[in-house]
Amino acid sequence: MNSPVGLHRVLAPQGVLPQAAEKLDTRAAIGPDEVRISVERLNLDAASFRQLTTKHAGDGDAVRAEVLDIITTRGKMHNPVTGSGGMLIGTVDAVGPESPLGLRVGDRVATLVSLTLTPLAVTDGLKNWDGHSEQVPAAGHAILFARSIAAVLPDDLEPALALAVLDVCGAPALTDRVVRRYGSRPHPSVAVLGGAGKSGSLSLAAARRAGARTVGIVPNRIERDRLAAAGLADHVALADARDPVALADAVSGALGGPADVTVVCVDVPGCEHGAVLATADGGTVIFFSMATSFAAAALGAEGLAADVTMLIGNGYLPGHATFALDLLRSEPELMKLLAERAG
Amino acid sequence: MNSPVGLHRVLAPQGVLPQAAEKLDTRAAIGPDEVRISVERLNLDAASFRQLTTKHAGDGDAVRAEVLDIITTRGKMHNPVTGSGGMLIGTVDAVGPESPLGLRVGDRVATLVSLTLTPLAVTDGLKNWDGHSEQVPAAGHAILFARSIAAVLPDDLEPALALAVLDVCGAPALTDRVVRRYGSRPHPSVAVLGGAGKSGSLSLAAARRAGARTVGIVPNRIERDRLAAAGLADHVALADARDPVALADAVSGALGGPADVTVVCVDVPGCEHGAVLATADGGTVIFFSMATSFAAAALGAEGLAADVTMLIGNGYLPGHATFALDLLRSEPELMKLLAERAG
Repeated sequence: MNSPVGLHRVLAPQGVLPQAAEKLDTRAAIGPDEVRISVERLNLDAASFRQLTTKHAGDGDAVRAEVLDIITTRGKMHNPVTGSGGMLIGTVDAVGPESPLGLRVGDRVATLVSLTLTPLAVTDGLKNWDGHSEQVPAAGHAILFARSIAAVLPDDLEPALALAVLDVCGAPALTDRVVRRYGSRPHPSVAVLGGAGKSGSLSLAAARRAGARTVGIVPNRIERDRLAAAGLADHVALADARDPVALADAVSGALGGPADVTVVCVDVPGCEHGAVLATADGGTVIFFSMATSFAAAALGAEGLAADVTMLIGNGYLPGHATFALDLLRSEPELMKLLAERAG
Repeated sequence: MNSPVGLHRVLAPQGVLPQAAEKLDTRAAIGPDEVRISVERLNLDAASFRQLTTKHAGDGDAVRAEVLDIITTRGKMHNPVTGSGGMLIGTVDAVGPESPLGLRVGDRVATLVSLTLTPLAVTDGLKNWDGHSEQVPAAGHAILFARSIAAVLPDDLEPALALAVLDVCGAPALTDRVVRRYGSRPHPSVAVLGGAGKSGSLSLAAARRAGARTVGIVPNRIERDRLAAAGLADHVALADARDPVALADAVSGALGGPADVTVVCVDVPGCEHGAVLATADGGTVIFFSMATSFAAAALGAEGLAADVTMLIGNGYLPGHATFALDLLRSEPELMKLLAERAG
């Protein structure tokens, strides 16, 4: 019998959910509540792509070979080091009669569940990818379960841009929710680490729209100039998010004190302590970076005697895709910045 | 100049906080705002002790040798695999003139910041420890910074019991806060995974006192009988927290539906998906286990399309030590259960 969460596609170990599985069953024949997608492009998670590129010192051929090996071995694109995956776009080519997803054959879609739990078979050896970009042209098929999520790509946006935004659409939605529910002040202050990136710039736009005073923290002058030109944040400041004292000083300098809400969108390890130190007592840190260490965050806050609420950034909120795409459409400078990044 | 968070004790790498450091400076001479403690006993974090015991197949001598090696190499008890440490008790033997901690020479104290950021030098080779218990008799010294936290041990409680409770006192305090702030219902339902353990039983007691209906989930009959006899939970149910479907069924069976709040106190990896699946839409998961994987939690919730708030269990809340000790004193069955566990 089919499981709505895909248990029937888990080959090993027994009983775990697909995301925890070592290996998934990628057979093309679909169950009555499944959907099969003809794959067009993968979008690797930024932390995963960075880890692979660093490991192979920028050798694109080696990166491509390892991605292919992971997909072949595991039946899914699930980086074993970072634990992260990414998402994909493609065209629906088969829909089981009991699928609740509302998709039709021919729909061009982006998957909004992680590649770490999506059965995926690649048939072209990734030959059209040079290994130097997160965007991976690919041929093959992927399977969606009854409880998966996919968004039909909008007609009015470039597919690469829509994919880039949908990939991180949980970030602006959760930032919006946290800012609006922030109890103690009407206009909380928000610091976004990695403010010029995809999830960072969307989170800055969402925070300001929800009524926050904002600062975007960036690591270099190029990103500072880019973010300042876009005008998405009240302040833009330079700091290395891995340097706790420098980061806290930069945030306080811009906002007049520590942030009520700090949003971590930097895809490098080691930003947990800085995020805690930059946040006001009683405030909230939202960790969206997949490079976040649970232990470093938990013990860091304890070690600093910091009374902060720390949220694991959930990639799903009801309506997150629509929220992010509407945000994009209503902020021309955001669209311009993200279009540049998406190439 | 001394840093209140101990930056001056970091030997490598430069600029990180002590918890992120590879190696700390354990020199016995204290700065003007530091406190030196003569160490009596370490209490290893449960996840750390379990990892070491498993790695060495229960060989106590090998476990002792590795703990000693970690302390000597790093200048702190910071398990590089689990990222966790523990805490210690000892006697204050020197107080810098500018220390804000309010401690006096001769005070018997427990440190409430993690051993992962506490400079520690051991001088007895841990010769009085057999490597078979989390409680490690030890001689040597440890250093507290201005922003560290330590609690003077109460006179009315056995030191081993007080230490065991103080080690996890953030868990009942945060459970209390989350249950009391739970907006949508007056009596939210709470599931505690690992309900018969230290942090689990304290969290159950805190949840019920805050007005919740509770279920304690335990992995075997011995713990079930123990927790049921203590009467700390409205329901006690058996399930392997690593089996998502079995866990969700056990929680729903006891509470009549998924839990509004799920508290994860199980010190084994792989409980993230079960915790998410056992939690109601709009509910909250609090992860206290140091074996929690950030990526598994974030991607698991996304993959299940679960709108749950996921909290990284912060070991610090204002008043957490007093809260936990008062809870203990007011619940004789809790005290009995924890005294049995603390030996």
